[in-house]
Amino acid sequence: MKNNFYYDLESADKGTQTDLSAALDNLRFNEDGLIPAIAQQNDTGEVLMMAWMNRASIEETLKTGQVCYWSRSRQAYWRKGESSGHVQKLVEMRIDCDGDTLLCLVNQQGPACHTERSNCFFHAVKEDQIEIIAEPCCTK
Amino acid sequence: MKNNFYYDLESADKGTQTDLSAALDNLRFNEDGLIPAIAQQNDTGEVLMMAWMNRASIEETLKTGQVCYWSRSRQAYWRKGESSGHVQKLVEMRIDCDGDTLLCLVNQQGPACHTERSNCFFHAVKEDQIEIIAEPCCTK
Repeated sequence: MKNNFYYDLESADKGTQTDLSAALDNLRFNEDGLIPAIAQQNDTGEVLMMAWMNRASIEETLKTGQVCYWSRSRQAYWRKGESSGHVQKLVEMRIDCDGDTLLCLVNQQGPACHTERSNCFFHAVKEDQIEIIAEPCCTK
Repeated sequence: MKNNFYYDLESADKGTQTDLSAALDNLRFNEDGLIPAIAQQNDTGEVLMMAWMNRASIEETLKTGQVCYWSRSRQAYWRKGESSGHVQKLVEMRIDCDGDTLLCLVNQQGPACHTERSNCFFHAVKEDQIEIIAEPCCTK
């Protein structure tokens, strides 16, 4: 039944509620046990970054209200802002139609990007070039 | 030098331009040659969906101005809206700080989700439940 969980919900009415732990059990993690998580600033809609979560980091994020990723490079929990102070306060976590991507609506404290830019997507394709479109911003 | 390309750009000034083909050569595709691509509605900021692209689908997207993903389930190009008409017109493609995620600003025609909802992220975590927060919408 695992693959059918999200499929079965597709035609459910708005307002339908289902057990969270079953929803998490049926997420489609990759072979490393990870799922992509997009962070979006709740009030402005700015897409801040994309990183990865495992089941435990999802549960920690929901429990603490502060976003915790899994760092693939460090193979360790990545409690966003733990060293920089640039934490992400969770407003709401959403799961997509087929359970293979998360969207975290957050209130970002300071810049989201490690380069001190507001968000990570600062290389814009312009014809046959890419252009840097953001400056590092002040922390707040 | 491959891994240093995006690192070297981190401290470059706003407005700095770099060759697109070098930028694409240095994207960090996964072991299947794929990179996650987030689609965001350009005017409203709504996060519509996340899917995957390979090098060729990125190039097609940039050339045609219509978003083309790579379908992992079908192992084939996924020209979004080819059958449904719900195409995504590309406004701008952006690359993140370390070259492992794309953000496509688009003008979505009709609903982005295959369930006919406006976007794919319609399961919201509410305490110990998930709740369906969107109805299928009319196509436009």
